[in-house]
Parts: sequence; C-alpha cells; structure tokens
Amino acid sequence: MMNGAQTLIRTLVASGVDVCFSNPGTSEMHFVAALDQVPEMRAVLGLFEGAVTGAADGYGRMAGRPAATLLHLGPGLANGLANLHNAMRARTPIVNVIGDHATYHKQYDAPLESDVEGYARPVSGWVVTSQAPERVAGDGARAVAAARAHPGQIASLILPADVSWGAAEGPAPPVEPQPARQVPETTVEAIAEVLRGGEPCALLMGGTAVLREGLMHGARVATKTGAKFLCETFPARLSRGAGVPVIERLAYLAEMAAGQLAGLKHLVLVDTKAPVSFFAYPDKPSYLVPEGCSVHTLAAPGDDAVGALSNLSEALGAAGDSPPVQAGSQPDAPTGPLDAKAVGEALCRMMPEGAIVVDEGNSAGVFVPIFTMGAPAHDWLCLTGGAIGQGIPVATGAAVACPGRRVINLEADGSAMYTLQGLWTQARENLDVTTIVLSNRAYAVLDMELSRVGAEAGGERARAMLDLSRPELDFALLARGMGVPATRATTAEAFSQQLQAALAQSGPNLIEAVL
Amino acid sequence: MMNGAQTLIRTLVASGVDVCFSNPGTSEMHFVAALDQVPEMRAVLGLFEGAVTGAADGYGRMAGRPAATLLHLGPGLANGLANLHNAMRARTPIVNVIGDHATYHKQYDAPLESDVEGYARPVSGWVVTSQAPERVAGDGARAVAAARAHPGQIASLILPADVSWGAAEGPAPPVEPQPARQVPETTVEAIAEVLRGGEPCALLMGGTAVLREGLMHGARVATKTGAKFLCETFPARLSRGAGVPVIERLAYLAEMAAGQLAGLKHLVLVDTKAPVSFFAYPDKPSYLVPEGCSVHTLAAPGDDAVGALSNLSEALGAAGDSPPVQAGSQPDAPTGPLDAKAVGEALCRMMPEGAIVVDEGNSAGVFVPIFTMGAPAHDWLCLTGGAIGQGIPVATGAAVACPGRRVINLEADGSAMYTLQGLWTQARENLDVTTIVLSNRAYAVLDMELSRVGAEAGGERARAMLDLSRPELDFALLARGMGVPATRATTAEAFSQQLQAALAQSGPNLIEAVL
Repeated sequence: MMNGAQTLIRTLVASGVDVCFSNPGTSEMHFVAALDQVPEMRAVLGLFEGAVTGAADGYGRMAGRPAATLLHLGPGLANGLANLHNAMRARTPIVNVIGDHATYHKQYDAPLESDVEGYARPVSGWVVTSQAPERVAGDGARAVAAARAHPGQIASLILPADVSWGAAEGPAPPVEPQPARQVPETTVEAIAEVLRGGEPCALLMGGTAVLREGLMHGARVATKTGAKFLCETFPARLSRGAGVPVIERLAYLAEMAAGQLAGLKHLVLVDTKAPVSFFAYPDKPSYLVPEGCSVHTLAAPGDDAVGALSNLSEALGAAGDSPPVQAGSQPDAPTGPLDAKAVGEALCRMMPEGAIVVDEGNSAGVFVPIFTMGAPAHDWLCLTGGAIGQGIPVATGAAVACPGRRVINLEADGSAMYTLQGLWTQARENLDVTTIVLSNRAYAVLDMELSRVGAEAGGERARAMLDLSRPELDFALLARGMGVPATRATTAEAFSQQLQAALAQSGPNLIEAVL
Repeated sequence: MMNGAQTLIRTLVASGVDVCFSNPGTSEMHFVAALDQVPEMRAVLGLFEGAVTGAADGYGRMAGRPAATLLHLGPGLANGLANLHNAMRARTPIVNVIGDHATYHKQYDAPLESDVEGYARPVSGWVVTSQAPERVAGDGARAVAAARAHPGQIASLILPADVSWGAAEGPAPPVEPQPARQVPETTVEAIAEVLRGGEPCALLMGGTAVLREGLMHGARVATKTGAKFLCETFPARLSRGAGVPVIERLAYLAEMAAGQLAGLKHLVLVDTKAPVSFFAYPDKPSYLVPEGCSVHTLAAPGDDAVGALSNLSEALGAAGDSPPVQAGSQPDAPTGPLDAKAVGEALCRMMPEGAIVVDEGNSAGVFVPIFTMGAPAHDWLCLTGGAIGQGIPVATGAAVACPGRRVINLEADGSAMYTLQGLWTQARENLDVTTIVLSNRAYAVLDMELSRVGAEAGGERARAMLDLSRPELDFALLARGMGVPATRATTAEAFSQQLQAALAQSGPNLIEAVL
C-alpha cells in the first residue's frame, strides 16, 4: 500500500517530471520521505523559495518540459511568487506542489494557516487543492498536463498533509496535454497578402518563435518581403550567435522602441503581443504601435507559431531560401578600464558553443548583447516579467536541465541581492554556472528612471534610495560564504583572465566585475 | 502646488508615521523624489522586500505605532508577503504603500502588471487603491487610522504612478483610529466567579496582555486564585527577566502543551485564541484544550485586555497585591563545547537591561529562553506566523524604533538564509544589533518533524533535503560581504569573549555560534 505522496511522485515521474526543486517544511515531510521510494525523482534543495521557483523557470525554458517545485504552505509559495510571475510571463511549464495543513486542521487557524489558493491564482493557469489521498495521483497527472498545455503554464497543486500521508491505490497514467492550436490557412494567406503589398511592414516575433527554427522561417519571410525583423524586448529564450539569423530586439526605452517602429504601416505579431512601454511616463504614450499602423496576428500565444511561420514562408515562395545569418566574430582582447563593452568582448572571445546566457544585467549590462552577437551559437534568457531576482535561480535551473552546457549569468548587483541563495544550490549540485556580477553599486536603472518619469529629482535623500555603495557589497565574500569560488576584477585584462579560468573550471564560480 | 506623492508623505508624517522602510522601483520614483521635500520622513533602504516588511514588523512591535513600507508593484509586495503574514499574526500596525502602474497603463498588461489587491488581501485588514491625486492624502490618513485600530493591523494603500505624480491640494488631517473595545463588567464578573470556584484553572495570556502591565495584573489574579499562569507559544512581544512576573510559555510540541494543560477545568483566554497544535499529525489531536475543560474569553483580540485584567484583579480583591516576580540571576561563565545552554548562560550574564531579543533560534535555540530568565528585564520577540526569515528584518526594525537599546537576534542558520539581506541595512544605518547565528547546519526542526509526522523516514534522499552542510555556509564571510563585522565561535569560552566584545561595540555585528 502506498500513501498519497508516493503515488503523486510516481505519477509525476510517469508523466515526465523528474526534477523537483524543493524547500520543504513539516507539512511536506511525507512527500520528502517518499523521495527515497522513487529514485527516478531528483530533488534539488534551495535555501529560499525564490531560488526554487526561479530554478524551475530556468529548467522549463531549457528542457521544454516542467520541473516540479515543493513549497511550504502559503508563505513558502509567497516567497516564490515573484519568480513565478516571471515564469508566467515566459510561459514556462511548471508544476508547483504546495503543501498545506491537513484538511481537518485548517479550521483551527494555526499560525501558518493562509489562503494558499489565493496566493497561487494570480500566477497559475491551473489551481487545484487535492481533496483525498486516492485522488492526488489523478490530480498530479492533470497538473502536469495543464503545465504542458502549449507552450506552457504554471499548474499549482495544493497538497494537504493528510492527503499526503493517507493510504492510496497507486500512480495515475499520464494525461495528454492540450497541443498547440493550428493557425488557419486563411490567416496565413491574409498576412502573406499584406506582406506582398509592399507597404512598410515588420514581423514582431516572440515566445516560441525566436528559437532557431522559427527564426529561420521568419528570416526567410522578412528577407523575401523586405519586412523589418523584430524580436520582443525580453524574450524568454532567444537563439542567437554565429549561424543564427539576426533579429533586432525592440528596445526597453519607449523612446527608442518608437524609433524602431516609426513609419510602419503593418505590424505582424508572431507569438507576442502588440508592444507597450514597460512603465507609464507622464505625457508619453503607453501603446507603442504608431498611428496608422495596422496590427495583424499570425500566431497568438498558444498557437503553433513555428508551423504558421513555415506555412507563411511557403505561401511567399521563400521556403527553400537560405536567409542571412550572423557571421562569427572574434574581437580583440579588451584592455583598460572594465565596462560593459569589455565584458561583452571578453565573452564573445571565450563563450563556448551552446552556452546559455541568463541576462539580468539590467542597466549595467544593456550593451553586452551587442558585443556578443558574433559569439558561437548560444541561447539568451531574459528577465521576462520585470521582477528582479531571476538571474541566479534561472541559471541554476538551466544548468540542471542542460548538463554539459556552460551557463553564464550576467547579473546586476541590485538584482543579485534578491536571490543570492541560489549560489548555494549551484555549489551543492556542482553546476557549471559562471556568474558575472556587473557591480555598479547602484539601482542605476532607477537613476535613469527618476529623471525619465519627470520627478523633481536630484535631492540627496531621493538619491540615497538608489545607492548601494554604503556599505559596499563584496560579492566575492558573499559567494565564498556559500561555497562558490569567486574573484573580483577591476580591469578588462583581469576580467579576461578570470573569465578564462572560470570557464575552464567545472562547477560554479563567480566574478565580480567592478564597473 | 504639490503632487499626490508629496501630499501622501506629508499626511503620513502628520498622522505619526515618520519611518518608511523602502525598496522602490520606477513606479515609485515620484514618492522617492518627494522624500527630499519632507525631511521629517526617514526612509530606510532594504535590498529585498522581505527585509523591508519584516523591519516594519519589528518597528511596529516596539514603537507601538506603524512604520510605512514602500514596495514595487505586485512582485515587490509578493516578496514581502511572508513577513507580512508574520506581522498579521503579531497584529502589528503597518502601512504598506505599494506602487502600481498608472491607472491608464494597466489595460496594456505590461510585463510587471499583476493583481496587487489580490496579493495584498490575505495579509491586510484594509486595502484601498487610490484613484486620484486629490484623494491620496485622505486615503493615506485612513490607512494610518486602519493600521492603528487596536491593537494594530496591516493597511495596504496601492498608489498608481499617475496618482503619485498628478497635482494635488495638500495633506489631509489625521483620522482617529478605532480604540480598544471595553470588556463588559458582566464578562469580568463571570470570569471572577469561575476563578473563585476553586476548580483547576489557567489564564492563557497573549497579544497586548504579556507586556509588563498586563503581566502584573495577570500575576495578581493567578496568585490570588491559584490559577496557572500561561503565555501563548509565540507572543509578538513578551516582557520578561528580573523584576517581571514569570509566565510559563505553552510549548511548541503539542505533546508537551497537552501536559501543561492536562487536568484543567477552565481556561481563561486573554487576548489570544484557544490553543491548537502548530501542525497536524496523524492520529494526534489538533485542538489542545483537554476534554471537560471550559473555555472563557476575558478579552478577545481587539479588546482592551489590560483594562479587563485590571478590572478582574480588582474584582478578586487582588489589585493592591505584589505578585511574585523573577529574581535576577548571574550564572557562572559557561565553559567547554558550545551549545544552547552556553549561549543562554553567556547571554544571561551579559545582556544589558532593556535589551530586545528577537528569537528565530527555532530548534537550536529552543532552550535559550530558560537560561536567560534571570537576565535584566528585556523584551522577547517571537516568530508569530511560522514563516521563517523574520529574525534579521525584525531585529533591524526594532533597532530603528529603539535607538539606545541593544537588539540581540537569535537566528537559526536555515532561517537566516531567507532574509540575510537585512544585515546590509543594519550596517548602512549603523544599528546596534548583535546577530547570533545558531549554526547546526541543518533544517533540524524538520529532522524532528520527519519522525513526528510518522513518515517512513531515514532514507538518504529524504535526509538530504534537511541538510545544510554541503557546502557549509560561512556566516562570517556572508556578514562581512554586507559590511557587518563578524566572528565565529566553536567553544563556550570563545563565544563569551566574542559576545562581550560585540555588545560593547556600537553598530551591528554577527557571531556564528557553531553548535
């Protein structure tokens, strides 16, 4: 006879979920105990739930299938919500398993009692509280299917302690997830017609369309028709580098994005939404599509965007074309003061093929992408939801998903401090992650935003809220305190040398790039 | 002409809220800019929202009036929810100011768009989204009044960016908060009658009743009537030490609490609820009141518990009595291996009068209270809601509230890693906080709970989820990385020496007590 927890873990494994990022508590102890009965499930411990949920996001983006999380009641889930927000924006498949008090215990309003479903709902496409031990296996199978609905979403399964410890029959068979919706031929033909029309046009690509296959189809279409080839500002996962079609990312700053979109008569959306500014600013527009520009949707999120692009390139007679791709480049070794250019050039020289770059470099790292365009082909993972503290955890999960590929985490100092605990998991699991902290000792993006929002700024007390220099953070000490070897670089030469050494080591390491 | 943000900050100050624990983002930049116009408001920067909300909790518990927080949209609030959960359980007054997108921007579903009210509701007694610049001052005054409703609650004011930057008239006058409800004489007399009856009886005290004044009244009642004198398991703030009446805290372990309550015929609740077990366990009761024991409520939360106790002692003819109080004690200097007893004895010898002890020592620290009973009078602040990661932030806020009083933070290693970022704020503000990390390199409470819940435990993979030793955390490095001087002790002698030095220094410091 099994208990509910055992049937749940076996069901998850049978459904293809075999990694569980965990930070358990008392109400999850039966789930934890059951790990020893199901060795196919790999449990990875995190020291804070933001590190756990962010790791599940990184894993899902790279593996293309969900990891599970194991979280402790409402407050444990709450600690993981910000990175679940980012994962929701990335449309990453994740199965949250959230322990709760025993069903009969909830009436007593014990100290940890909370509204778990209420916390889960804003970030989840599917929320179910399992009501009985004999039902939890089926609920688990449905949770995995929900998470895998194309392209992915967050499914939150709440697991009361007595459902976990009660007697249950056995695991449930996998449930087939909802596949991608096919885009009708008429839609493809209508958009082909627009593109043939010769008016100024752009393809705006995102989501599943900006991996290599979608980019190849899209680039054929853009080249054939003369359309601009644009990518959403913060894609969840973008293929780029030598041999991959070049795509121009829409700028974060609305003023710059407006320039990229100016003069367009048609904007064709491929697995993304019409562009809006990240924040509102006094007397500036929120909606960035220029007046007189028609918006057409080739593929909405949930559609088979790659199939639609393939059909579109076929309709336009471009299916066999070889679109232009990025040439490889090898910049000179950077010298002198350390800045984003030097970081980018050093990376471009040394990044191994198949690297995974997790980019939470924010303001300090904004120019690194430009200098790494010609690096060997790699994936670039962005901060999708704007909730900082994503980088270290996502890098952790990406490394779990892709052993053998080097993960490079470009991390702003302010953001690094949100979920620094992820470094400990990298050390514990000996993951090949190189973290580069771009240390400017400020919330520099806010320094810029303070003037952009038109605030009467510049006062000493306002500036103090953006300043991280008193006291100075020492990231090398912080990393070593969690078992991650670390160095500090203040010149381009030192950085290059440290990066070369870091990329040659197995396991995690960290370089504080003092800018 | 002022803008909305300026009128809000001036209103907060006029209503008695002059500290704002902050982690702002772009949507809060007008609020930040306005800080330079209102120097009476002290803004304290935190590097993570859990550190911000926990500091507001510590401040509110010690100051008896709310601090404000400044949080960045839904994800920023989400990061602070776990410590708001603890603050809600502590009934701490807090005014959250949560920035949001401009009202007209929300329709565009920009990356940071989220359900801010939905996140705020589970922890807040009052939630309002301010709708216009000319209304935000009044909303602010009502938020403070809501937070100050006796004994305190969380008020969440959501501040859209355009409400912040739009033109407004001026600040609003303070609004009178709801006072404590008076307990009717008939209730007091009925309970006096029960106590006079001579059956086995206990007073169970909590909330506002376990500060010195309430304890004095309660001890008079208990002494006069022979009632047991009990305190809830995790009081928000307990007065204790030499010269303060001794009260027995109800144990965390239900088995032990059941022993404390066994044989009672009457349980009188004073600003607390009938005791329930913290978690549910198979085949063990959740409700801890023994069969045949009647429960009487002298004062429910929100009632004037101290007034009711005073009236009760009067009704019993005990008003003028001198109840027994704790004698001072000076244990011998501890020697040999470092354990909780040695930590407690060293503290008892050295703790200055008026110290504030923030206790998140969890399993490693469970015996420290026993060994510090005879220390000079002090306050003891507990983990009220069970969401770990409270200690460092609450210590930070308590130190801001009480300059001149030494704060001692007993911190478990696992819990410390949740909100370690608070150390940086302690360094930045030069707060007199001594953090003692009780380092046992495990989630030891879970080790115990794993067997208590009856899980088939002991497997290697289950145990790995409770183990913090691979790699070892070095808290001295972690503290120094954030600008806090730190040492490490492995013997009682070294700990005593380091504690003496730490308590003599101004500003923060940390001792890793390796157990």
